Amino acid sequence: MFVKEITVMNFENYFPVWNDLNTAQKKIISDNLITQYVKKGTIIHNGNLDCTGLLLVKSGQLRTYILSDEGREITLYRLFDMDMCLLSASCIIRSIQFEVTIEAEKDTDLWIIPAEIYKGIMKESAPVANYTNELMATRFSDVMWLIEQIMWKSLDKRVASFLLEETSIEGTNELKITHETIANHLGSHREVITRMLRYFQGEGLVKLSRGKITILDSKRLETLQRS
Amino acid sequence: MFVKEITVMNFENYFPVWNDLNTAQKKIISDNLITQYVKKGTIIHNGNLDCTGLLLVKSGQLRTYILSDEGREITLYRLFDMDMCLLSASCIIRSIQFEVTIEAEKDTDLWIIPAEIYKGIMKESAPVANYTNELMATRFSDVMWLIEQIMWKSLDKRVASFLLEETSIEGTNELKITHETIANHLGSHREVITRMLRYFQGEGLVKLSRGKITILDSKRLETLQRS
Repeated sequence: MFVKEITVMNFENYFPVWNDLNTAQKKIISDNLITQYVKKGTIIHNGNLDCTGLLLVKSGQLRTYILSDEGREITLYRLFDMDMCLLSASCIIRSIQFEVTIEAEKDTDLWIIPAEIYKGIMKESAPVANYTNELMATRFSDVMWLIEQIMWKSLDKRVASFLLEETSIEGTNELKITHETIANHLGSHREVITRMLRYFQGEGLVKLSRGKITILDSKRLETLQRS
Repeated sequence: MFVKEITVMNFENYFPVWNDLNTAQKKIISDNLITQYVKKGTIIHNGNLDCTGLLLVKSGQLRTYILSDEGREITLYRLFDMDMCLLSASCIIRSIQFEVTIEAEKDTDLWIIPAEIYKGIMKESAPVANYTNELMATRFSDVMWLIEQIMWKSLDKRVASFLLEETSIEGTNELKITHETIANHLGSHREVITRMLRYFQGEGLVKLSRGKITILDSKRLETLQRS
């Protein structure tokens, strides 16, 4: 009981519309809230095979991506501490007609509001429905940004952006990442990425070694990104 | 007065959550509803320069697209009779962080619910907020479909090839073939093929009718096939 109250108390701070819920709604969420720990690499949500529920990231990192029939990937966006994941509950909104995969990119602590519970509250609560709107608009905006990257930014800029983003996320200039992984993130091919990275190395922007990319000149990568 | 009542009565049939509104909400929408006729080629909404309001297409055709710095366009989706346009009121949802342009592709009759009016009702009405959610999810799905086409496409080329081959085989531009059959030929799903054919129809390449596909522009289908 004591542990549960602490959990719920914590959840209140993470869930922005908690104070807009009535007592019954608070109770039904508290009673059905699931806490879960997932190890790095776990696939949390897979297309429309499951409708897990709304995920709230307590700590860790999730990656949302789409997968082609041939197994190519494009990263849509990442979720970090305190971020809410709506697409893992895509069944609650009928008009969501696409499928994403969500994996834990780091060991992650989650809260899960089961889909049916959230759906029931969203149907009757304008604040929760409007909050859901804002969540979807945020992800929609992420995807619109991506489409512009793909269509109008040349690959050199996208690779530069990706490397800068990774150094910022990881907090280090030494990235342990394969060319294959970068290719998957950018919806490209390994050979194409390797070529670009070698070009960057030739320009003195990065240093390549086995399984590692060291950023040597982030200033010029930023210039390239903006060019 | 008489004319106004007819207009509002008509609007009721077009606006799916009308019956979920209370009397005050119905009155505020009726009192503020604008009807507008726009000529083909008119730019109705331009990035975040204006926040027109929610548009309901009575009859006509709108095109929503994004524009690069260099003036390149990508069509995101089209709106036809009875479709509702949310992104022309993007200011009502704070997290919409992208800009689109909307133009009338044909002479179009519209209803406009001013942004502030809609926003006020959405804040207090769960049905209206949830309806807005469904609208956004529909457009989000359109864009996700597009991103997959762009990245992995071939399907548009494959459908174009298939249609051209069939017209050549059958010796006619009027193909009596179901979407299901095309899907089977191409190892795809009926829903996917239907969506692509509707996209082709929006582009003026084909005309769809019950159990029939009429090729309108085989030149452009050939160009698409080769692209």
